[in-house]
Amino acid sequence: MAALGDRAAREVRIIPIDGIGEVRRGDDVAELVVAAARAQGTPIETGDVVVVTQKIVSKAEGRLVALADVMPSPRALELAAALDKDPRLVEVVLRESRRIVRAERGVLITETRHGFVCANAGVDSSNVAGEGYVALLPEDPDASAEAIRRGIRRLSGAEVAVVISDTFGRPWREGHVNVAVGVAGMSPFIDYVGQTDPYGYVLRVTTMAVADELAAAAELVMGKLDRVPVAIVRGYPYQPGEGRAADMVRPPERDLFR
Amino acid sequence: MAALGDRAAREVRIIPIDGIGEVRRGDDVAELVVAAARAQGTPIETGDVVVVTQKIVSKAEGRLVALADVMPSPRALELAAALDKDPRLVEVVLRESRRIVRAERGVLITETRHGFVCANAGVDSSNVAGEGYVALLPEDPDASAEAIRRGIRRLSGAEVAVVISDTFGRPWREGHVNVAVGVAGMSPFIDYVGQTDPYGYVLRVTTMAVADELAAAAELVMGKLDRVPVAIVRGYPYQPGEGRAADMVRPPERDLFR
Repeated sequence: MAALGDRAAREVRIIPIDGIGEVRRGDDVAELVVAAARAQGTPIETGDVVVVTQKIVSKAEGRLVALADVMPSPRALELAAALDKDPRLVEVVLRESRRIVRAERGVLITETRHGFVCANAGVDSSNVAGEGYVALLPEDPDASAEAIRRGIRRLSGAEVAVVISDTFGRPWREGHVNVAVGVAGMSPFIDYVGQTDPYGYVLRVTTMAVADELAAAAELVMGKLDRVPVAIVRGYPYQPGEGRAADMVRPPERDLFR
Repeated sequence: MAALGDRAAREVRIIPIDGIGEVRRGDDVAELVVAAARAQGTPIETGDVVVVTQKIVSKAEGRLVALADVMPSPRALELAAALDKDPRLVEVVLRESRRIVRAERGVLITETRHGFVCANAGVDSSNVAGEGYVALLPEDPDASAEAIRRGIRRLSGAEVAVVISDTFGRPWREGHVNVAVGVAGMSPFIDYVGQTDPYGYVLRVTTMAVADELAAAAELVMGKLDRVPVAIVRGYPYQPGEGRAADMVRPPERDLFR
């Protein structure tokens, strides 16, 4: 779509998509997004990045769990007591995790089966379906993003990129930010390594995680109370092609913070 | 400026400010920004968030160091040998740091005197002034942001918020993102704790680091090759008031990753 040099100096718009309403198991997210964007007079266009919150994807994919149906293991009971958490929630978190990263001061940070390091394995109790239900991350968020991308193309003819976003905390910095947990139709990175700056200095290390920046930008119009689960980022010259949020997980051998 | 409920469902624009050119010690950043924004037909307006890259602020404040003038300490020589880095750069990094967080595999991550945890204490070799020079972070980036905010008000009459951004890596995730190292005129956070979702669930923990999301959003129009060191985020209903990026540094007693 654009060479590196064209990337800058173009205005980018972040357009909230309102009116999607309650999403239920089996709903077609692409159909909901295309219809809602059209209804508000901002139909999806080729070149858009469509950022969708994980929550509605998980709901459409039926990734809800009723805590009443969960039988905590002895390990979950023990951890829950130490952390002052609901043992059924802890059980669900452990099932979604391949490793506990930190479990202290009421905080349970794990590595999910996808490789994401985040609180409660991304299992979320807010904006789900009322007290007593939790939402899991999609089984394969990159596949979910790809399905939405293809659906949007089929329904609207628009060639877009799709980012599925979730809200993560970070070490050392207060507050949460939205990041990309699923990506389709674009590279999640832009790579400046080997480019020369205006002073002749060759950039050595800068790879930008643009999929995370797109997720963060979209959050600015979303809010947390679930009325705006989708935003269009328009005018951003992403690099089209195959790309996966899975590639954003730093491999253990390169990770100084395992 | 806006209650929480109004935050969503408004389009946000990210407008690159081009044509600022080379910044030199003693330059008035506010003046450069106001003039460049006006010249390109998008004058600064009340309610804008003006995102400025750390690099031009550091240059204006004279925070450049000629490596030829730096005498590395024995500690710097030792670390530099282990990490295969320039000992003079390592010396500068150590002077800017209060603690080494990781020093392995060619990577030196420290806690800066401000409390930021990042590679090389934020000391940067790219886009500076040619090989042999490095740029330090501003001495007090919140004060720098406040000075720019006041300067913009004085020169244009516009009441804005200012974010000074820098490019940081993160644990566990590949790629860098822009974050806020200085903030003025707004709270860096938006707090949903205690708000009720549409299902009656009371949100327990979500504080969004919106200053970081604004920095990330602005990066989308900036690029890394230094032609666009400033962007306006327009239409984002930030919470005006006193705010500091220093408040985004997680205090040691709440930090699980020290």
